[in-house]
Amino acid sequence: MTGWLTGVVWTACALTLSVGCTRQGTGTTGPQIKWGLVLHGGAGTIDRTQLTPQLETEYRAALTEALQAGYRALRDGGASIDAVVAAITILEDSPLFNAGRGAVFTADGINSLDASVMDGATLRAGAIAGVTDVRNPILLARLVMEKSPHVMLSGSGAEHFAREQGVPSTPKEWFYTERRWKELQDAKAAEAKSGAATIVNRQEKFGTVGVVALDQAGRLAAGTSTGGMTNKKWGRIGDSPIIGAGTYADGRCGVSGTGWGEFYIRNVVAHDICARVEYQGTSLSQAADEVVLVKLPTQEKDTGGVIAMDHDGHIAMPFNTSGMYRGWIGAEGTATTAIFRDK
Amino acid sequence: MTGWLTGVVWTACALTLSVGCTRQGTGTTGPQIKWGLVLHGGAGTIDRTQLTPQLETEYRAALTEALQAGYRALRDGGASIDAVVAAITILEDSPLFNAGRGAVFTADGINSLDASVMDGATLRAGAIAGVTDVRNPILLARLVMEKSPHVMLSGSGAEHFAREQGVPSTPKEWFYTERRWKELQDAKAAEAKSGAATIVNRQEKFGTVGVVALDQAGRLAAGTSTGGMTNKKWGRIGDSPIIGAGTYADGRCGVSGTGWGEFYIRNVVAHDICARVEYQGTSLSQAADEVVLVKLPTQEKDTGGVIAMDHDGHIAMPFNTSGMYRGWIGAEGTATTAIFRDK
Repeated sequence: MTGWLTGVVWTACALTLSVGCTRQGTGTTGPQIKWGLVLHGGAGTIDRTQLTPQLETEYRAALTEALQAGYRALRDGGASIDAVVAAITILEDSPLFNAGRGAVFTADGINSLDASVMDGATLRAGAIAGVTDVRNPILLARLVMEKSPHVMLSGSGAEHFAREQGVPSTPKEWFYTERRWKELQDAKAAEAKSGAATIVNRQEKFGTVGVVALDQAGRLAAGTSTGGMTNKKWGRIGDSPIIGAGTYADGRCGVSGTGWGEFYIRNVVAHDICARVEYQGTSLSQAADEVVLVKLPTQEKDTGGVIAMDHDGHIAMPFNTSGMYRGWIGAEGTATTAIFRDK
Repeated sequence: MTGWLTGVVWTACALTLSVGCTRQGTGTTGPQIKWGLVLHGGAGTIDRTQLTPQLETEYRAALTEALQAGYRALRDGGASIDAVVAAITILEDSPLFNAGRGAVFTADGINSLDASVMDGATLRAGAIAGVTDVRNPILLARLVMEKSPHVMLSGSGAEHFAREQGVPSTPKEWFYTERRWKELQDAKAAEAKSGAATIVNRQEKFGTVGVVALDQAGRLAAGTSTGGMTNKKWGRIGDSPIIGAGTYADGRCGVSGTGWGEFYIRNVVAHDICARVEYQGTSLSQAADEVVLVKLPTQEKDTGGVIAMDHDGHIAMPFNTSGMYRGWIGAEGTATTAIFRDK
């Protein structure tokens, strides 16, 4: 399919998702690409009354820039893992998303960053949790994968590893954004008023970023990066740095999630989607829909969404919230972005 | 089946596992119980030339004590999660196992403890990573599940949560064992000699502990606790506190893993076994064998083992190392323990 036709089919289906998308064949239809990438910039309560036209333009521009960066990495035969890291680096450096520069603040008023990557062709993976001074957590996650015998490093130990690998300490000011600071103050005010911990704010955009890429050699890779939840406490680790929960890729399927991390961990969301594809023989779209639109909503409302791609280039982007920043780009090089249910 | 008959069938099959166990029906046979628990105390290079008769007796006594503690929790109608926590608490307090009191030392000469629990009936879960001063990490993991909105807490934040929950700080001396301290010195000496990081010692017994329990109401639960790997660095987090990797339970299937954590994370081992049972319709034994005896060995030798149980009380305990401390107890109350391939 061409990107244009694909977009039309997918948009038509997304429109019907709010009332239950019509199943076509073995699953809801999504775009199919030869090679390329799909990404998200977070799911949550995102509607046109909240998002000014200017801000919408900024979001779409950032998503497009990230898609193009990933595309350039793939165009000349680069590996899917390179595209994942290139695109996420752009999103981390944007103050718009809850990752890297735009990360939310913990209850202690710091930015605590989590990220993970997985190379589907080799099942190698790297992840970091609770890092406070690394500008691009996704680059550090890749270094864990490639330069350590471990998969997951945390806290000051992970920062120590970063220094050993020549990754400099980034000043805390880099991560400060007025919007996120205000969100923390609002959460603390609500907490003081209610007397109960207000860690999860359903109205917030979760804002995690993630990418799944398929390169010209047919290799899948996935990655996710986040600042977690506003006002989080006690060294909480969400799903983003957990292989199987927020990120997973194998030879057949790749997934990155965004949403209420606790539900993604308990449901091992990313791996569950790929396991359904592999063991049930269902389409990627159907597997992703079953988990995001059926299983998660039985447990809690508005938990989030995923992006997913299989080794044939089928793309799925279901979400059970009102919106999800998302986009994809195929071999023809046309970036398509969407935010709301309809586009 | 009775416990005795079950034991004979299982032992006969375990004997043949080293040369490929004969498949009976859709999988290798294991014991089946009405309700009860199965546990492990770690997999690794465990053979009769290394284990003195006295030490073997001590291991079997500790495994039996843990099985009986779990049994008592279930006998009067208690929940499977109570049995998991009761049994693991015994193993954590024993200096024999790499969890709680007998935990190995990190490169920094401290004990860094990880644990997780999951309640299959509700899909609720709790986990802690990198805690240094909590005597029974499994109790703290349960508190995370029941008293916080989160699934996973880490480092000093998790210790802060422990204090808020009234869990006292345990002096570091409690965790010191001469044997584990010597293991660290040996690892450091080998590292100095080779000039390379000696984090993974294939000759070591991994020693993680874990339990899967099935209560009289048919509810499954699973839990795992560990000190990680000797000489570990950079705040490494292994599979034990990761839901889906080292621990997983749902309504149909529960698993706890023990072994080389990085491979368990990358293969999402615990969830993969349960996904095969649910989506492929294979038996628990076959699913566990496929992952532990087929999939993992294609990536690396001697990666470890798992214990698993389904909601019909079928038990599987495959391992690809020379031994695994393990045992089970059913409704009749007879504890059975095993260490080597044959018993």
